[in-house]
Amino acid sequence: MNRPNESFIEVVTDAARQIPMELPEIASTIKPALVERVQAALADDCEHVHALGRLESLALQLCRIQLGDDDQPGSLRLESPQLVVFAADHGLADEGVSVFPQDNTRKMALRFLEGQGKSNALAEQFGFAATLVDAGVASHLPAPGAQANVPLLLRKIGYGTRNMVLTQAMSVPQALSALQAGMDVVRHLPGNVLALSNIGVAGNACAALLLSRLCGVPLVDACGKDQTADPALGQHRLERLFAAASRHRRAVAPLDALAALGGFEVAMMSGAMIRAASERRVVLVDGFVAGAAALVARALVPAVSDYLVFTHRSADPGHRLLLIHMQATPLLDLELRTSQGIGALLAWPMLQAAQRLLSQRG
Amino acid sequence: MNRPNESFIEVVTDAARQIPMELPEIASTIKPALVERVQAALADDCEHVHALGRLESLALQLCRIQLGDDDQPGSLRLESPQLVVFAADHGLADEGVSVFPQDNTRKMALRFLEGQGKSNALAEQFGFAATLVDAGVASHLPAPGAQANVPLLLRKIGYGTRNMVLTQAMSVPQALSALQAGMDVVRHLPGNVLALSNIGVAGNACAALLLSRLCGVPLVDACGKDQTADPALGQHRLERLFAAASRHRRAVAPLDALAALGGFEVAMMSGAMIRAASERRVVLVDGFVAGAAALVARALVPAVSDYLVFTHRSADPGHRLLLIHMQATPLLDLELRTSQGIGALLAWPMLQAAQRLLSQRG
Repeated sequence: MNRPNESFIEVVTDAARQIPMELPEIASTIKPALVERVQAALADDCEHVHALGRLESLALQLCRIQLGDDDQPGSLRLESPQLVVFAADHGLADEGVSVFPQDNTRKMALRFLEGQGKSNALAEQFGFAATLVDAGVASHLPAPGAQANVPLLLRKIGYGTRNMVLTQAMSVPQALSALQAGMDVVRHLPGNVLALSNIGVAGNACAALLLSRLCGVPLVDACGKDQTADPALGQHRLERLFAAASRHRRAVAPLDALAALGGFEVAMMSGAMIRAASERRVVLVDGFVAGAAALVARALVPAVSDYLVFTHRSADPGHRLLLIHMQATPLLDLELRTSQGIGALLAWPMLQAAQRLLSQRG
Repeated sequence: MNRPNESFIEVVTDAARQIPMELPEIASTIKPALVERVQAALADDCEHVHALGRLESLALQLCRIQLGDDDQPGSLRLESPQLVVFAADHGLADEGVSVFPQDNTRKMALRFLEGQGKSNALAEQFGFAATLVDAGVASHLPAPGAQANVPLLLRKIGYGTRNMVLTQAMSVPQALSALQAGMDVVRHLPGNVLALSNIGVAGNACAALLLSRLCGVPLVDACGKDQTADPALGQHRLERLFAAASRHRRAVAPLDALAALGGFEVAMMSGAMIRAASERRVVLVDGFVAGAAALVARALVPAVSDYLVFTHRSADPGHRLLLIHMQATPLLDLELRTSQGIGALLAWPMLQAAQRLLSQRG
């Protein structure tokens, strides 16, 4: 089943063709006049060059995403920021790779829908509209009742992925459906800033596998040592991930790896990133799992990474390596061990600050 | 003149006695019930313990500063945040230790008064009231005209410090006046959050000297290598700082070191920190120079450091060492090469987020 054959390769190649491989005017296009204007807008004759450090490079990235070479940096606009959280379950959780019961996915998704999660509070504080996408929670999420504060989008690909130690997490058509669903979700959202995050037990294990596969990072490093967890659990987790990686050792092409080792929420976030980039939206990438989605998106459409702002480095040791492979300097490093967009929301005021400084001199 | 003698030591000791050595209910007091309540407020049964990482430790610090052991974390209030920028000149600038002409101090101070500085824009964005304190600019700052957006407090100790390669930067009575002035400034400001920063050419050289003297860091490390500057200038700068350090090698007591190697703005920030702590205000410490003021303040009143939030790590190599010696994990690391409070302002939304999360569950 998992050994690639001619027809399988054809499917993958055809599928890859359906994804927009070229973004309209990509952010990495050299725009010398724009770059000069941004640097001039932030420069100060009384200070060192590049005195704003990471904030200047952020401002440059935002301008490159949104503006052409003839535009003024002051015309940068960040509008109607959206927080989109994708919830899904992983069959891999059956292997006991997480300290949490699988039901936590559902609990956290419901809490988010009711507006009771931490990221709901921060989304409100920072002016983000929140949306939950059911990408594949293992149980039925109730239709949002009167209590619900957050819209629920039903894009369930399945009731959790399959256990990837035994078989592919999802089929290639499922992976493509998930990518497509992610694109659709973005198409219907307003604004030009999108924070993407996830809810789902065992998502980090899946991210570690994708990091290892797509970047050649040894699995033991991609998993890292969780200093707070039980060492026996850590050893068990690593063994199960080795088993999964070894089972799918031939799944090296991006779509193939995504299907074999990915998750529904990962695939949807990848699709969302590609679509967002094609619409010149700024994408705020949250934690390790969203980072793994960025790896997949970049593997499918390399130019997408120009649109991704990596908002923070989490406590997960694999996340550090992932950011190195994405050549990304995160805005924050807060040792977070949570997803749901919290890191992305905390970084948002820096984007606002960059915009504000660009518009200061007209 | 600079060799300590009996009467000099007496002056210093008496002076130190005038500073409140005990803070009312210090933030480091063990408040076990409060700590437990804060951790419970931020905990989540679906997530790892301490999932909020640095944000949790920030929340704990804020609660310890403001609340007693019987209080609820949700009653934390951050009110009327103030940005106070202290401007002063350094006689040391005569030695050519900065790439900038000394007149930049005045230019930057005037721009800040007119509301045209970068930190004015960010202060407005983040809801801070700004104040400029003339701690000792080398020229007369004009009385704020109709254009001025920012109140100017005239607390000039002198027209710049003296050249510390030749003599003490200031006399001990001047250092004490500056400390006192910093305390006075705080007393008249509303709110319970204070961001402290500085304007002044050669301030960083002064900070490097204080770091070296008060923490025993070799001067060559405290200065660091400025990778963007001319190596010849770097060598010259280091030589002049060695000359200053060697001239005042016996100035080891904190007040003594402050007088010999400090600056008016450093001394005032130290006084402001001590006073703010005694009023249980949260102090946002900006860059390297504000950090040097924190070193001095801690040397005078050790408990003051519990009230200091180190907001960012700048690109200055000495700043990294200073933070290690303060045992501080900064909130941001943006490679900033600017002061004026920009880093402190950028960190502010994290304090708001911490407060918001603490109050989420009532």
